[in-house]
Amino acid sequence: MIMNQNAFQKMLVIGIEDGSFKKGVTKKALLAAVLFKGLTIEDVQVTKIEVDGLDATEKVVKILDKWKFDAVMLAGVSFAGFNVIDPEALFNKFGKPLIIVSRTKPDNKAVKLALLRHFKDWQIRWEVFKKLEPIKRVSISAEEPPLYIEIIGAETHWAENLIKALAACGRMPEPIRVARLIARGLS
Amino acid sequence: MIMNQNAFQKMLVIGIEDGSFKKGVTKKALLAAVLFKGLTIEDVQVTKIEVDGLDATEKVVKILDKWKFDAVMLAGVSFAGFNVIDPEALFNKFGKPLIIVSRTKPDNKAVKLALLRHFKDWQIRWEVFKKLEPIKRVSISAEEPPLYIEIIGAETHWAENLIKALAACGRMPEPIRVARLIARGLS
Repeated sequence: MIMNQNAFQKMLVIGIEDGSFKKGVTKKALLAAVLFKGLTIEDVQVTKIEVDGLDATEKVVKILDKWKFDAVMLAGVSFAGFNVIDPEALFNKFGKPLIIVSRTKPDNKAVKLALLRHFKDWQIRWEVFKKLEPIKRVSISAEEPPLYIEIIGAETHWAENLIKALAACGRMPEPIRVARLIARGLS
Repeated sequence: MIMNQNAFQKMLVIGIEDGSFKKGVTKKALLAAVLFKGLTIEDVQVTKIEVDGLDATEKVVKILDKWKFDAVMLAGVSFAGFNVIDPEALFNKFGKPLIIVSRTKPDNKAVKLALLRHFKDWQIRWEVFKKLEPIKRVSISAEEPPLYIEIIGAETHWAENLIKALAACGRMPEPIRVARLIARGLS
């Protein structure tokens, strides 16, 4: 897929991030989804997901069903504790690329240990992490630390260029940066 | 105050708008405040106000207390029904200009009649509307209908230029447009 910067500026990209919650106190956490057209916000949806639950993927499906979009950016795959969003399931349903973006390098060994320790149903959750390799390092600018991404349904080069085109304020692409501000502003 | 477009792009401007609610069903409505630096979202806060209550001004004071800012844009003065935000009170407290922006020309005669009909304490609410004259018409672009603005603490020319600099997607300035998307996305 060959695209210039201008084409990215018209793409419909959704960013998804969760709000904060108090472990053991709050049963649900907020999940914000923001639809961008290039660098302009087009729409916002917020839902609630269970802390350490298993309802995040189905809640995200309901959100995505309401929008037309070209790609989805997830701030990790684990939200509200270990409530996983399954990017492969979303790709199979919607046929659009998903990019998982992390500020720090995902440590899947540590994730597996934590899951084994805390969840009887650890395998369901681990399946989502397991299939996400390889992790790629993306450098947005010389002044900032890199991002780490995992991609489903698109080429690395395309995903990197999309992230760079949408990183207007720091290294995080706007859809995720703003989804985070909204989710935290509400929590 | 003389400023070029570039200076506006670095100003900290807050937009405030409410969410939707069902009259007689919902007791509170959401009020979203979004802090922009030029056209970039810096932060988000959301609060709840009573439908037809009198707590909007104090709730907004709490929000503004947490931020540094140069100006506030309100999508009208009446939120969640007739819960009024008093721009003069905010100007007296924070010393920053307030711009009330409306898509349609405010009809203060109709407002007064509605207040008289429905509120025993109509005078408290009417005070806020009464002191807002004159209403000014601002044309953002030749293709779109005008906006109507009321200003406290700044000159008309400055307020018009600020609105034009921040109207990046349609005629509504971004702080209000995005506050609306967030408040409605949650309601």
